[in-house]
Amino acid sequence: MQHGIDLASFLLAFASALIGAKLLGEIAERLGQPAVLGELLAGVLLGPSVLGLVPLTDAVFLLAEIGVILLLFEVGLETSLEELARVGGPALAVALAGMALPFLGGYLFTRALGHPALTAIFVGAALTATSIGITARLLAELKVLTSREGQIILGAAVADDVLGLVVLAVVARIAESGSVSPAMVVRATALAVGFLAVALALGIPLGHRLVRIVGQANVRGILLAASVAFALLVALAAKKAGSAEIVGAFATGLVFARTNRRHDITRAVQPVVDIFAPLFFVSVGAQVDVALLNPAVEANRPALLLALGLTGIGFAGKFAAGFCAWGGVRRAFIGSGMVPRGEVGLIFASLGKATGAFPEQVFVAVVLAVFATTFLAPPLLKALAPTLARGDAARTSR
Amino acid sequence: MQHGIDLASFLLAFASALIGAKLLGEIAERLGQPAVLGELLAGVLLGPSVLGLVPLTDAVFLLAEIGVILLLFEVGLETSLEELARVGGPALAVALAGMALPFLGGYLFTRALGHPALTAIFVGAALTATSIGITARLLAELKVLTSREGQIILGAAVADDVLGLVVLAVVARIAESGSVSPAMVVRATALAVGFLAVALALGIPLGHRLVRIVGQANVRGILLAASVAFALLVALAAKKAGSAEIVGAFATGLVFARTNRRHDITRAVQPVVDIFAPLFFVSVGAQVDVALLNPAVEANRPALLLALGLTGIGFAGKFAAGFCAWGGVRRAFIGSGMVPRGEVGLIFASLGKATGAFPEQVFVAVVLAVFATTFLAPPLLKALAPTLARGDAARTSR
Repeated sequence: MQHGIDLASFLLAFASALIGAKLLGEIAERLGQPAVLGELLAGVLLGPSVLGLVPLTDAVFLLAEIGVILLLFEVGLETSLEELARVGGPALAVALAGMALPFLGGYLFTRALGHPALTAIFVGAALTATSIGITARLLAELKVLTSREGQIILGAAVADDVLGLVVLAVVARIAESGSVSPAMVVRATALAVGFLAVALALGIPLGHRLVRIVGQANVRGILLAASVAFALLVALAAKKAGSAEIVGAFATGLVFARTNRRHDITRAVQPVVDIFAPLFFVSVGAQVDVALLNPAVEANRPALLLALGLTGIGFAGKFAAGFCAWGGVRRAFIGSGMVPRGEVGLIFASLGKATGAFPEQVFVAVVLAVFATTFLAPPLLKALAPTLARGDAARTSR
Repeated sequence: MQHGIDLASFLLAFASALIGAKLLGEIAERLGQPAVLGELLAGVLLGPSVLGLVPLTDAVFLLAEIGVILLLFEVGLETSLEELARVGGPALAVALAGMALPFLGGYLFTRALGHPALTAIFVGAALTATSIGITARLLAELKVLTSREGQIILGAAVADDVLGLVVLAVVARIAESGSVSPAMVVRATALAVGFLAVALALGIPLGHRLVRIVGQANVRGILLAASVAFALLVALAAKKAGSAEIVGAFATGLVFARTNRRHDITRAVQPVVDIFAPLFFVSVGAQVDVALLNPAVEANRPALLLALGLTGIGFAGKFAAGFCAWGGVRRAFIGSGMVPRGEVGLIFASLGKATGAFPEQVFVAVVLAVFATTFLAPPLLKALAPTLARGDAARTSR
């Protein structure tokens, strides 16, 4: 079979990503850090700016995307819709504050430096969305995914990912035509939020039926294949509805979490995630260009200073948003859990560059700030996790 | 993340392939046929010539390739090197006869129809290699992978895949320069055969050491990730050595089959194979252009007739080769197991077309013959499998 993708270079990238991710993940764990931090660092080392073993090719991004879709499907499987609904209020408050504060901070800071309004809008928007993939993985690793705090973070991350893509649609329209109609904003929001509601309302009865039908089949692997196919289709529908693929995959996980085959599906999907999710984290790390991080190089300094400011704003905005939660929860932990940015921030940065809203220096600074928040969160959350455990114990003993 | 691959169309293709493969696989099983036949037919239906849900894109081929690499890794894990070595003699005899007979038949038949020698060489070569992926999957499904017959078929399929790629190198050289030196043939053969020997000799101690080191690690999924990374690297090395990726993956499976974590790795890799291998079988079926199969269309007839002849030769040559086996085995079953052709035949066909050795009609006929053998084998093997079971019983009672 002949095709345009260089299979040999992809096999090398895939193998290097697996080895690097697990090796540095293990080292990170032994140093008391979450493994995902090691996987991100492995990406930096393996990426084009250092070793070049994991190039940023279409093939790597495709498999990384499959990996993060399956990861969110697994996270959904381990999440209870009831639990999530129970924290709906605080989660939404955290999500909205966590979008408003970094947006305002980013906008004002960029304006104060003398940049035009459009640049400032893009900078603010790029700081809004928490990375649901990195956050979910961190929570699972710290074994707090099902805690009240974990559920609030997860719910807020899903909400701001959904709303972040609405912001993306709105900002893209502003960049295109210079303005935006309120009707367009309402429509985009209704579509993204409505999608989730419809996916769950239709998905739950369908999921039950699918599991029943598949239970009568004999062919090997059909339960996993059917549920993964379902997740891929809902991910596709989510994208078409203006939401993100991973939101669709997460919703499908929630659907199958309510069936009696939940544990069988989870057990079968875990090894698939173990193989493909590392590619996602490594590909995120691989996008860091270490050459730009050297402050000894004079040309790097303006972008580094801007990045430092944006990282501070991005961090403080999300951290403060955690304090909008209520219900006797550890709010510093929630705020920290919202800190990591990811894909959506990078998409904003690329769009800002493509539309000319970002001069090169602003583009580099935004990308650096997105990564800095991603790398800051794991050690911070890990440090705060024991506090959370004590909080849990305190609540239990009450 | 932005990239050149259309993620939406890939998600649709992936989901359709999973659903189609499992649905038709289940129907095939209920009709007493092997599931893989259903998966191949699902590919025909989903492919560009009928529904168009699974296009033949780079992304589909990439994931299909990952799928078949992991499938052969799993097959290797379920194979004992000692068992395989015990049937080395008959397996090699079957492999060599199974290459010589179809090559001669194809060559003479094509010459008799008045085509030039180069065309006839390419046709003969295209009929030589058994598809190790389809054969292995069939044997596993019929639960005869570890029978003496199964081991001979598997050993012969690996041998003729290794040698088939030597033939490919030689034929490509002939097409390029019109002739080939004996030194080049010897070198290509030594490289391909030597690779397997070296991979096993180095791999076995390395595999044991890797399993021991990984056993001391805590990070989730590291055993599977490490062994899959190993398989990917050996697959890459196999390709570089002039062999096929899947031969490297199979060798790695053999290596890990000798460790004490064999069952853990097998259990973990199975769901990954369940998700990705169907893409391979569906992508094979999707390459069939049903429009060319209609004998009512006058333009199709010459190619169909040629294909019919080549299918007969391809079938008879491999079937007869089965009778070169010895040791009280069911030789008709072995011959039938060698019948399915696959990737290597298609590569020869593409190369024949690209170098101008094949007129369009010959190209179409060779592709059709490759597919016909692939579709013929599953029902035939299934029909012969009960005979095999009786043979096994007879041997045991002796």
